[in-house]
Amino acid sequence: MIAVPQFMHFPDALALQSGASIRDYTLAYETYGSLNAERSNAVLVCHALNASHHVAGVYEGQDKSEGWWDNMIGPGKPVDTDRFFVIGVNNLGSCFGSTGPMHENPETGQVYGADFPVVTVEDWVGAQARLLDRLGIVQLAAVLGGSLGGMQALSWTLQYPERVRHAVVVASAPNLTAENIAFNEVARRAIVTDPDFHGGHYYRHGVIPKRGLRIARMIGHITYLSDDVMNEKFGRSLRPRELLAGQAAPPGDPATLLRDYHYSTQDIEFQIESYLRYQGDKFSDYFDANTYLLITRALDYFDPARRHGGDLTQALAPATAHFLLVSFSTDWRFSPQRSREIVKALLDNRRSVTYAEIDAPHGHDAFLLDDARYLGVVGAYFDRIAKELA
Amino acid sequence: MIAVPQFMHFPDALALQSGASIRDYTLAYETYGSLNAERSNAVLVCHALNASHHVAGVYEGQDKSEGWWDNMIGPGKPVDTDRFFVIGVNNLGSCFGSTGPMHENPETGQVYGADFPVVTVEDWVGAQARLLDRLGIVQLAAVLGGSLGGMQALSWTLQYPERVRHAVVVASAPNLTAENIAFNEVARRAIVTDPDFHGGHYYRHGVIPKRGLRIARMIGHITYLSDDVMNEKFGRSLRPRELLAGQAAPPGDPATLLRDYHYSTQDIEFQIESYLRYQGDKFSDYFDANTYLLITRALDYFDPARRHGGDLTQALAPATAHFLLVSFSTDWRFSPQRSREIVKALLDNRRSVTYAEIDAPHGHDAFLLDDARYLGVVGAYFDRIAKELA
Repeated sequence: MIAVPQFMHFPDALALQSGASIRDYTLAYETYGSLNAERSNAVLVCHALNASHHVAGVYEGQDKSEGWWDNMIGPGKPVDTDRFFVIGVNNLGSCFGSTGPMHENPETGQVYGADFPVVTVEDWVGAQARLLDRLGIVQLAAVLGGSLGGMQALSWTLQYPERVRHAVVVASAPNLTAENIAFNEVARRAIVTDPDFHGGHYYRHGVIPKRGLRIARMIGHITYLSDDVMNEKFGRSLRPRELLAGQAAPPGDPATLLRDYHYSTQDIEFQIESYLRYQGDKFSDYFDANTYLLITRALDYFDPARRHGGDLTQALAPATAHFLLVSFSTDWRFSPQRSREIVKALLDNRRSVTYAEIDAPHGHDAFLLDDARYLGVVGAYFDRIAKELA
Repeated sequence: MIAVPQFMHFPDALALQSGASIRDYTLAYETYGSLNAERSNAVLVCHALNASHHVAGVYEGQDKSEGWWDNMIGPGKPVDTDRFFVIGVNNLGSCFGSTGPMHENPETGQVYGADFPVVTVEDWVGAQARLLDRLGIVQLAAVLGGSLGGMQALSWTLQYPERVRHAVVVASAPNLTAENIAFNEVARRAIVTDPDFHGGHYYRHGVIPKRGLRIARMIGHITYLSDDVMNEKFGRSLRPRELLAGQAAPPGDPATLLRDYHYSTQDIEFQIESYLRYQGDKFSDYFDANTYLLITRALDYFDPARRHGGDLTQALAPATAHFLLVSFSTDWRFSPQRSREIVKALLDNRRSVTYAEIDAPHGHDAFLLDDARYLGVVGAYFDRIAKELA
């Protein structure tokens, strides 16, 4: 399946939760499959921290350009683009195509930088709703997202209940815990205190706060994986000297176990160190630091129960959609318990909810990986939605 | 109880595991209580990352100068200094009194900086044994430590089996997991990539890599606490604007719940952020960056089973001491499962082992806190040791 990025310009101001507004912005998006005559088969896919509108398919002539959820979405896949019209949209503030901190602020003629307005999950959903308006889609067959994307899916059912028939919320939570916020805060401090950050206006200095981005990504990676999968993948294996960064010898390789330590505090000794440094380096080459701050803050702020004194049942009362929730047993970033809180609040409201807790070793990352039971559950659910359309 | 730091100079070279050696070094130590005529009532206390020889008591005329384990050690306390002669010793490479990276290298006449040799748990134990030689103590009634200190206690029983009658290993592990190493590595990268680090020779530049130290400490703090205790202590409470850094309003205070967000990616919004920044700032004012690298590396390297193909039972076979192991239910840095691995390996060797798993909400930090059951278990064990002396 060939994907083609598209762009929609929005001249009118969008009022944001913070009280600020943004105008003359562009959203990057992609669509797969065809909208049916009734305009009833549209599925919106919301993305998490390090993803974009490029959800599925490949770009013409570009090897390894699969979308980030290509195992989930496409012809004959769990979200079948032969039956659904799937829309991937890049959020405001991102660095992958939609208007973000690296673009010009029409109010000043200067690059936004740190002046890009703080955006929330609710703001993203508002911007997505405007995009659907322009595409002529009144009601979604489903809104679908994992992690931060799941928060957007949940927020859709609260902000626009009548526009969502089904919501699929994967590996998500009704809000972040103190520990989640803490990890985000450390990552942000690493970026903001990097001398190359220049208060967020590093573009005009011709530098990038790569040190901070690397640290942020390393912290992120640790929290995306489970302790178990890290032990299985890396354990205490040493890194053979002849390998390049990012390469790993298989655990159990004698060369990784029998050699002596190098006794250094700065050289790479263990394979896990090599992996993390490689991931950090790669990330700092393409991800924007201001975007990192904005997206982690949107995560921190999301908390629909907040305006209801912490009562999630009350907060979810407006939702009328049918729900599928999925969580993964070893996900300690967004643990199954957090998904169960959403399930309970929906059931308290007598909503229709399907919940699957998948026994998977991969931690939070599991929501992006191939797992037959996980893909099977989502596939069966979308099969049900497709039958409602017929 | 008044504590008095003492210093012992060691002119002769100590051979280190790395193959390097160190000479003309000094160890800072303190002693509490009196050595009996048989010299049989000595207890050595080993410290973890952020601690020192100042284990118990206070310094004359100094308010709030309690030793780091003052709730455990002192007259009438679980480790009763009316019955035991307790020795606290600061490890080589520390920044609290013993020779470390900020001192002069006698080989070069320059400050060590990054040239301070990499030291291991085994090296520290070797240096501690030399100190005991000089103090005329042939055999310890007990060696005692928590976390990294517990690793030293365990190593004592392997390096000098005949010199240890009892080993008390609290909240420790037979080695670090990949996740543990990963957190250490991120902290080290934050320090090493701080432009003020200058390859570890920041002393001669008159600067301190405080940015890196702050990040390192923030990461550490998250891993010392449990998710539960963070939710209980901080939750999603907002920080009232009028509070200073480090101050926290009680959770549930209306001012922390009802005000609107400030919508900022850099200002403190949540109390957990305030707490972490304060801890990071404080730490960066007194802790040495090179010491941080050395101590975390010693943690990474400790792995007595390594020379036995990963077989911990075989590795612990030389130990002849009696053991008390204690772990805490919510400690995810050194989980109860890791202590149980040690217990199992000792039992496989038919050693005498007492094991207590304390149901405590405080995560890894629990080993430093007041918990009646924990202090009771340790107290009962030392009571038994004292009776053996009589």
